[in-house]
Amino acid sequence: MRLAETPAQDGFHMPGEFEDQAASYMIWPERPDNWREGGKPAQKAFARLAETIAQFEPVTMLVNQDQYNHARASLSPAVRVVEMSSNDSWMKDCGPFYVVNDAGDIRAVDFQFNAWGGLLDGLYFPWDKDNQIGKKVADLQEFPVYEVAAVLEGCAIHVDGQGTLIATESVVLSEGRNPGGLTKADAEKIFHDYLGVTKTIWLPEGYFMDETNGDIDNMLNFVAPGEVVLTWTDDTSDPQAEISEDAYERLAVATDARGRHFKIHKLQTPRVLTLSEAEANGVDPINGMLPRVAGQRLTASYVSYITTNQAILMPIFDDPQDAVAHEQLAALYPTRQVVDVPATEILTGGGNIHTIAAGVPGHHTGGK
Amino acid sequence: MRLAETPAQDGFHMPGEFEDQAASYMIWPERPDNWREGGKPAQKAFARLAETIAQFEPVTMLVNQDQYNHARASLSPAVRVVEMSSNDSWMKDCGPFYVVNDAGDIRAVDFQFNAWGGLLDGLYFPWDKDNQIGKKVADLQEFPVYEVAAVLEGCAIHVDGQGTLIATESVVLSEGRNPGGLTKADAEKIFHDYLGVTKTIWLPEGYFMDETNGDIDNMLNFVAPGEVVLTWTDDTSDPQAEISEDAYERLAVATDARGRHFKIHKLQTPRVLTLSEAEANGVDPINGMLPRVAGQRLTASYVSYITTNQAILMPIFDDPQDAVAHEQLAALYPTRQVVDVPATEILTGGGNIHTIAAGVPGHHTGGK
Repeated sequence: MRLAETPAQDGFHMPGEFEDQAASYMIWPERPDNWREGGKPAQKAFARLAETIAQFEPVTMLVNQDQYNHARASLSPAVRVVEMSSNDSWMKDCGPFYVVNDAGDIRAVDFQFNAWGGLLDGLYFPWDKDNQIGKKVADLQEFPVYEVAAVLEGCAIHVDGQGTLIATESVVLSEGRNPGGLTKADAEKIFHDYLGVTKTIWLPEGYFMDETNGDIDNMLNFVAPGEVVLTWTDDTSDPQAEISEDAYERLAVATDARGRHFKIHKLQTPRVLTLSEAEANGVDPINGMLPRVAGQRLTASYVSYITTNQAILMPIFDDPQDAVAHEQLAALYPTRQVVDVPATEILTGGGNIHTIAAGVPGHHTGGK
Repeated sequence: MRLAETPAQDGFHMPGEFEDQAASYMIWPERPDNWREGGKPAQKAFARLAETIAQFEPVTMLVNQDQYNHARASLSPAVRVVEMSSNDSWMKDCGPFYVVNDAGDIRAVDFQFNAWGGLLDGLYFPWDKDNQIGKKVADLQEFPVYEVAAVLEGCAIHVDGQGTLIATESVVLSEGRNPGGLTKADAEKIFHDYLGVTKTIWLPEGYFMDETNGDIDNMLNFVAPGEVVLTWTDDTSDPQAEISEDAYERLAVATDARGRHFKIHKLQTPRVLTLSEAEANGVDPINGMLPRVAGQRLTASYVSYITTNQAILMPIFDDPQDAVAHEQLAALYPTRQVVDVPATEILTGGGNIHTIAAGVPGHHTGGK
């Protein structure tokens, strides 16, 4: 059902990722011009993540027709496999946003998706099927839908569920997403009307060299309202150090929608990871696709973890810092189990694990 | 989940169509080599049927990616639209069978589908996507699935839910469906093992000129255990008269799984309907597809009605007999509303309305 008003008018707002979650959705990767070796290693990594999430809550894997039988055979019965056409596999970015009200009703908000910048600086063309996923998933779930004309991805924002949103200017205001680019005022009105946000905190940019223009979800994550973890590096020779420091300074003086100052936890990155020659050569290059080049930096951060009711699924990179980050997150989430998810394969496709699984608000108490 | 045993071993059986139903599934028609005028009139007819069923129970319309936006826009919010690839649109024939146990658990049974006869005398090639629909829908619904190697369509059988099955030899034993053809003993073992059937009643053939080889569902329907309605014509110049009379004689002396004799209600067909020149010319002919020829007989019967918890959806053909059949069904189903569904457009595609909507067992008390 298409809704005529806005969520704000109807008393709905977007909840935080640490709030109750009923299920997760993912998309099966397959395109050989983005995923090395015909997508086979990525499929194994996605399957492993799906099985891990399924230990804690129901998981649906969306898959193109041509890969349906393969995906079904690659996944255990704990994962529901549903056919749905896609251009690539970044569920959190192309899937629906969700808003809730005080009565516990859930509705979907369908922003437009244009592969992080359309024809100007987007990452693939066409993106028509990915742009349909928001509506299709909302319909599959039988949630009423608010349609929004503006382009926005799920990983472009983080909210605290209490009126606060954090985003990067480089993404939300980018010219490639919305013609001419949105102004901050434009964006803040959209956040207010469609996500129930009353206070937006802007950071200038995201993780160094992030090909999405720097989505917020590789920079920081909300542990709870008023409490964030921030990607950090003590290595001042790394350009990321300056970006993180700038973010820290802004967050340190900011107040949220309820007037609180933030508690900020620094989460050290692993060593700088780069694409190997073999990894780059495993991708089938085509015109119009961002080329994968040996030596290019991968956007490895631990803040791109996935929050479920009972667990934090944390990306790991075969790095000594993995264990440190694990302990740190375990301390920050005392009621949740922290589970390590090997993530390097996901990074080779241009993103991190937070972008490939999208939680659906609601109540669920355990896995299958 | 794929199950290792058989439904019979696990205490499951197929319920009758007059038993509790939770929802219905349909497939959006589009192929221009079967549906005239690019499928547009058929789409309107399917949409109308979906909206009608949705007044009584939830309806899901499955649709190929290329028609998703059009189908979604053509249907009201009362109908859920879900992407699923198909070759054509005969849900009851290619979708899953369902079995239930005394505890009310529901499982799916996935027979193979080869377009009513495969390369020998099937109606289209390829049929690979239609053959996947059983598994996909079962997975979508999260029902465990029994896989069966044999070919069988939903409209090839009718059951009373108490151990009795009625089928036509011309369909079930056809050489095109199963290599070499099944023997009656083969078929009866399959019916026993996978549908919980203990008594099969065979009719030699189905409705005159039915291109499926004569599926049972255009010949008769169960009103209740021990009670059937049979397609009938008093016009002895119509070859159907002899077929119906033969069926009547066999049913009159048969006993069902519980030893009961049948109460048989005769349901007069409308006038003989044929494909018009304009209708035949509206189909795009291709090699390998059964040609549509002006003057070819359409298989118009009223027994191809759809049973839901609260309503009987009855095909009508702009014929004086429509009202007579309506009254007769209203008397046979005193607790259900009889709703007329214009069906001539469906007949031009080679089937009747019973084949395009598949009910799912379960509990539901009303429409959206």
